[in-house]
Amino acid sequence: MPRTITAFSNPLVKLAQGLRDKRTRRQQGQFLAEGLRILTEARDAGVLPHILFFAPAGGDHRLVRELVDAVEAAGGEAVETTPAVLSKLSGKDNPQAVVGVYDEPSTVLHRLDRTRSSIWLVAERLRDPGNLGTMLRTGDAVGAGGLILIGDCTDPFSVEAVRASMGAIFTVPVARCGWDHFLEWLRSGPGQLVGLSLDTDTDYRSAVYGAPTFLLTGNEAQGMPTDYAAACDLRVRIPMLGRADSLNAAVATAVMAYEVLAQQR
Amino acid sequence: MPRTITAFSNPLVKLAQGLRDKRTRRQQGQFLAEGLRILTEARDAGVLPHILFFAPAGGDHRLVRELVDAVEAAGGEAVETTPAVLSKLSGKDNPQAVVGVYDEPSTVLHRLDRTRSSIWLVAERLRDPGNLGTMLRTGDAVGAGGLILIGDCTDPFSVEAVRASMGAIFTVPVARCGWDHFLEWLRSGPGQLVGLSLDTDTDYRSAVYGAPTFLLTGNEAQGMPTDYAAACDLRVRIPMLGRADSLNAAVATAVMAYEVLAQQR
Repeated sequence: MPRTITAFSNPLVKLAQGLRDKRTRRQQGQFLAEGLRILTEARDAGVLPHILFFAPAGGDHRLVRELVDAVEAAGGEAVETTPAVLSKLSGKDNPQAVVGVYDEPSTVLHRLDRTRSSIWLVAERLRDPGNLGTMLRTGDAVGAGGLILIGDCTDPFSVEAVRASMGAIFTVPVARCGWDHFLEWLRSGPGQLVGLSLDTDTDYRSAVYGAPTFLLTGNEAQGMPTDYAAACDLRVRIPMLGRADSLNAAVATAVMAYEVLAQQR
Repeated sequence: MPRTITAFSNPLVKLAQGLRDKRTRRQQGQFLAEGLRILTEARDAGVLPHILFFAPAGGDHRLVRELVDAVEAAGGEAVETTPAVLSKLSGKDNPQAVVGVYDEPSTVLHRLDRTRSSIWLVAERLRDPGNLGTMLRTGDAVGAGGLILIGDCTDPFSVEAVRASMGAIFTVPVARCGWDHFLEWLRSGPGQLVGLSLDTDTDYRSAVYGAPTFLLTGNEAQGMPTDYAAACDLRVRIPMLGRADSLNAAVATAVMAYEVLAQQR
């Protein structure tokens, strides 16, 4: 039976609320996800929260009920609470019907099996959580083996990144590492490193992509450092006909990933 | 000479701050844009703000100076102010060096010249300002004739949408209308309406796109209504190999737009 908690001062509420903070997430090794669609996606991928907060009058009662039952069957804690508490946890005025506390999966670069997929996404110094989440979502759609985050990237387990991933945070492995470490691992096996760049004449549609292809996207404002670009096996550009000569980083990654997918199919 | 204003209670500051609210924007026919990159982009496209707020110790002084001079030469008002006031205007803790007050351009559907471009973006009930801004940015990159917003879309002139557009709000025309009005206009001239849909077997790479192509993207959560899909000349799907069977709306639009561009070039 779920227990009912309505007080902001309750320790479970405080624990969950603390996970909105990056440092606390790192210390606890846990993160928050919210919304029926995302939590159901997670469950379908075999991942359940330790703690599930839900509002009694959730819009889609059956789905909430299924989640509650699954969490309790797995030994987790289901907590009935108020919209006000859910609002506090999700940081939104119109809170979702459910918020879950999950373990951060720890994916070590050396454990990634590069034969798992012929497309991998790599991003360096990615700063925007929405972009990161969107890349995960694209990664899920193209069947990417994972997302490798290089250098000082935004936290993939922030509420904003998890939200933008629409559940892909549970299906697409994420590894974090430094550039040198990444290169060493990359060169220890097969793989073509393809960099998105403005500093090349090679159109992304005329290039030939190997398998596996590692698609490297640079920082939103600055692109990638020149030595990173130099280390790529191939640099390609996406044509831009407008004034701005720039695309959103998640959009550019997706346009590239779908070209690679089309060639590989 | 710029005048200096540091008080939150100043009428110009209050006027600008009011433009963070949708209703005030509509009443005044004005909107806010912020950041050196976006304001410089606007100036290069021939658009200057009526009022320019800037901080004295802006990071890139030369660019700020150029904007101030341009605004004053055009009879606008340049206002030196504090980071605290800029923070209030931009709604961010780390404010940009410049914030401008601009006239909302009014683009009427019937004034759009469809021969201007062979790609047009059309979105219906687009709810997320980041997606809208990102679509404008993609529209700029693919040389789209404009973005046509159908039904109850998020405001293209919100601070968030303008920010995500990275200046494309100044270069890509935006028209807003109802579905019936749009269809009537569309059918009054040449144009292929292409709908992004999950409910078709036609792969987006195997379809042939006419000129001009109007790419229709539906609401983020629900996709487009069945009668909208039925009115399309062509429905295509983007393959999705993952669990989620969905892409971010701005990403899907970009993947499509770049396929159309590749065919048309």
